[in-house]
Amino acid sequence: MVYDLIVLGGGPAGYHGAALAGRKGLRTLLLEQKALGGVCLHSGCIPSKTWLQAAKILTHARNGTAYGVKAAELHLDQQAVTARKNKVVRILSAGVKTKLQNAGVEVVAAKGEIQGRDESGFRVKAGAHCYTGKNLLVATGSVPVIPPIPGLEAGLGAGTIKTNAELFDLDHVPASVVVIGGGVIGMEMAAYFSAVGSKVTVIELLDRIGGEIDPEIAGILYDNYRKKGVDFKLNTRVTAVDGQRVQFASPTGDGAVEAELIILSAGRRPLLSGFGLETLRPQMENGRLVVDRGGRTSVPGLYAAGDVNGRSMLAHTAYREAEVCIDCILGGTAEVNYEAIPAVIYTDPEVASVGETAESSARKGLDVQTVKVSMRYSGRYVAEHEGGDGICKLIVARGDRRLLGVHLITEYASELIYGAGLMIDRGLPLDELEKVVFPHPTVSEIIKEAAFQYGSI
Amino acid sequence: MVYDLIVLGGGPAGYHGAALAGRKGLRTLLLEQKALGGVCLHSGCIPSKTWLQAAKILTHARNGTAYGVKAAELHLDQQAVTARKNKVVRILSAGVKTKLQNAGVEVVAAKGEIQGRDESGFRVKAGAHCYTGKNLLVATGSVPVIPPIPGLEAGLGAGTIKTNAELFDLDHVPASVVVIGGGVIGMEMAAYFSAVGSKVTVIELLDRIGGEIDPEIAGILYDNYRKKGVDFKLNTRVTAVDGQRVQFASPTGDGAVEAELIILSAGRRPLLSGFGLETLRPQMENGRLVVDRGGRTSVPGLYAAGDVNGRSMLAHTAYREAEVCIDCILGGTAEVNYEAIPAVIYTDPEVASVGETAESSARKGLDVQTVKVSMRYSGRYVAEHEGGDGICKLIVARGDRRLLGVHLITEYASELIYGAGLMIDRGLPLDELEKVVFPHPTVSEIIKEAAFQYGSI
Repeated sequence: MVYDLIVLGGGPAGYHGAALAGRKGLRTLLLEQKALGGVCLHSGCIPSKTWLQAAKILTHARNGTAYGVKAAELHLDQQAVTARKNKVVRILSAGVKTKLQNAGVEVVAAKGEIQGRDESGFRVKAGAHCYTGKNLLVATGSVPVIPPIPGLEAGLGAGTIKTNAELFDLDHVPASVVVIGGGVIGMEMAAYFSAVGSKVTVIELLDRIGGEIDPEIAGILYDNYRKKGVDFKLNTRVTAVDGQRVQFASPTGDGAVEAELIILSAGRRPLLSGFGLETLRPQMENGRLVVDRGGRTSVPGLYAAGDVNGRSMLAHTAYREAEVCIDCILGGTAEVNYEAIPAVIYTDPEVASVGETAESSARKGLDVQTVKVSMRYSGRYVAEHEGGDGICKLIVARGDRRLLGVHLITEYASELIYGAGLMIDRGLPLDELEKVVFPHPTVSEIIKEAAFQYGSI
Repeated sequence: MVYDLIVLGGGPAGYHGAALAGRKGLRTLLLEQKALGGVCLHSGCIPSKTWLQAAKILTHARNGTAYGVKAAELHLDQQAVTARKNKVVRILSAGVKTKLQNAGVEVVAAKGEIQGRDESGFRVKAGAHCYTGKNLLVATGSVPVIPPIPGLEAGLGAGTIKTNAELFDLDHVPASVVVIGGGVIGMEMAAYFSAVGSKVTVIELLDRIGGEIDPEIAGILYDNYRKKGVDFKLNTRVTAVDGQRVQFASPTGDGAVEAELIILSAGRRPLLSGFGLETLRPQMENGRLVVDRGGRTSVPGLYAAGDVNGRSMLAHTAYREAEVCIDCILGGTAEVNYEAIPAVIYTDPEVASVGETAESSARKGLDVQTVKVSMRYSGRYVAEHEGGDGICKLIVARGDRRLLGVHLITEYASELIYGAGLMIDRGLPLDELEKVVFPHPTVSEIIKEAAFQYGSI
């Protein structure tokens, strides 16, 4: 039997692509060696959000006095947090399984190994069987980057150092934590451990945290976590790890910090080896599988979606890429609009962005204006935040006044950013923003207020 | 001197309209007898959200055990809540004042009384002066409806009964509360008092709470507050109030309930008298000032925005109506799209809706399909809610598959609904929804999941 589509990997790109293909009537096989849901569900987005919900409850209760609420003897039970995380993962895993069943997708719990290609399609071995598919979707995801630092491999082996893959089964709150890498994952973990009472140090190679986010917003996030007691070492390179001691070098001198728990969050890299991809010789570049905006690799019939293409490395990008791949397989012309993909850091406050920053605009030679407003123009923000220092930035094309970027640091940012992405995707001119009715009072209104201050309304 | 525009009333419609007019270069005068910001800022949206933030912190801490967070003693200090409310109102009032100043609007703290109209414009007396304006924007807002129930006026006079106008200076948590009217305001107040420990009874004339919202969502809200201990008396008419005793009649018999505090939230009616409107003889209907979608009354140059037109009675509708009025004064053709105005109930969980319900579609003869999904398809929802019973409903036109309505009951609903409103305003077909990238994991993703289940993706 020949499948219309074989999907390698059961993470967001894989399961969403397979379910969609099944729904559209393609005979679809999904191969996943580990658990359905991928890193996102088992050791990424979902476990971290379950943890962070506990942190949020704890932090809000602790700061309640400013709002008229007093809580005595606050206590976090890390075993309960982790047990709840396991329950949430079980519920959502069952959901993924059901989604695939309902879509008529055949799922085999085995690693797929590409054997090659013949006139009937791609041949993929999984367990004792060999399957053939007319199309092949590579959705093998990514793995943590392990930089070549002395002591790192040994620490990972011994369990004194953890990546996201090992972290979420923690059964107690460590007294101290060093986070190596102050990007998105690193900052979410710093947020958690600082909220639950660990002494947290973040070591970051760059001069700012938060990765690609707007630098001013990165600065506000930095200030917020400094105030919460997080120690940041920017422009700092880890030179060695010895047991619980992390050695580093910085422009201001070398040093070391000890911690009960060391978290490595130095980025992720596409997983390209170990499943026979080399037999097909698709174009690779800088350790990623090259695809066009339709998810096509250089090999006809071979598609890739999700982290493996190294483009955006976000679960929702993976979903969209998978949708586009299925559309292309079905003869469509869909493309991913990488200029309108939101990104979130689930710290407290949250950071959410979509589209261009002033920096990315400059790199692309776009003539833009930046509008910045304090979140304190939002009545709900003032009503809900004592001493909040959030901001909203709009990036607007100077010529046709199209909205090109929206950047927020505030509670709720994660939930309201999709609407801004829609505006950017649709090329909404700022002058059209006035027709959008934002309910009052909400934090989302800040987008309209920024447009008002820009002068479009 | 002749003003281009005189604005009567400094609430959302009045101050937003005046600021916009000033920004656009119109010589603008705003007359407000009481405080700038109107009912919304001083005794409505903002005070209630400040209170509800305290309730939210308290509730989350109380329910923390399910998330691994324990608090030994929880206590709400109503004096602190009210003091903080006063501070928030002061901050935001100052913001409104600054906004008007920056826009070059002249503000006179006096009641405007229309004297008539002559060849140079509308004549309005305020204090010792008489002003003339080429255009006049009536933004006088609304007042609580006081039904003709024996004892109600007396109770309001004695202070045993309070409307929103008197409520927000409360200095202690009452042991028991009766809420007359289970609409939006009534439910927000029931939510607050049940969270802070009062025994709450809601008496509602209709067979459901929440006003015009989707009946199934109204039912879920009802169940949530029943579980929290709120006693609902539906299909029930208040027949008399005697001191702290509320007498009622229902199909199952008559009765009475006593409470320390009685809240009257039986709706609001446009404020049309006491400022000389009758001298201009604009068209009225059912106690509201009739306007077209451009905010024009039947009198040339006379505009109305906000509650006074009786159309939607929401602050954000007032903003939009004011924008449209200013555009019309400047010769534009803007109109309010009343089919895409979101509405929110800030209970816990929140309810947010935009566009048609199945019921309103049926009344209009629209051929629609309803898609309903459990919020438990959202990973973030599951991660953040133990035992959550939220839902998302889409109303889709059967013919061209345009999205006509979105209805949600879940935390964050208020902040994500504007994006749905944008989709509806722009006539987005459901098939286009797949191009919208919702960040993962968010509650907002549920809209895409519903589209998936409908089969468009």
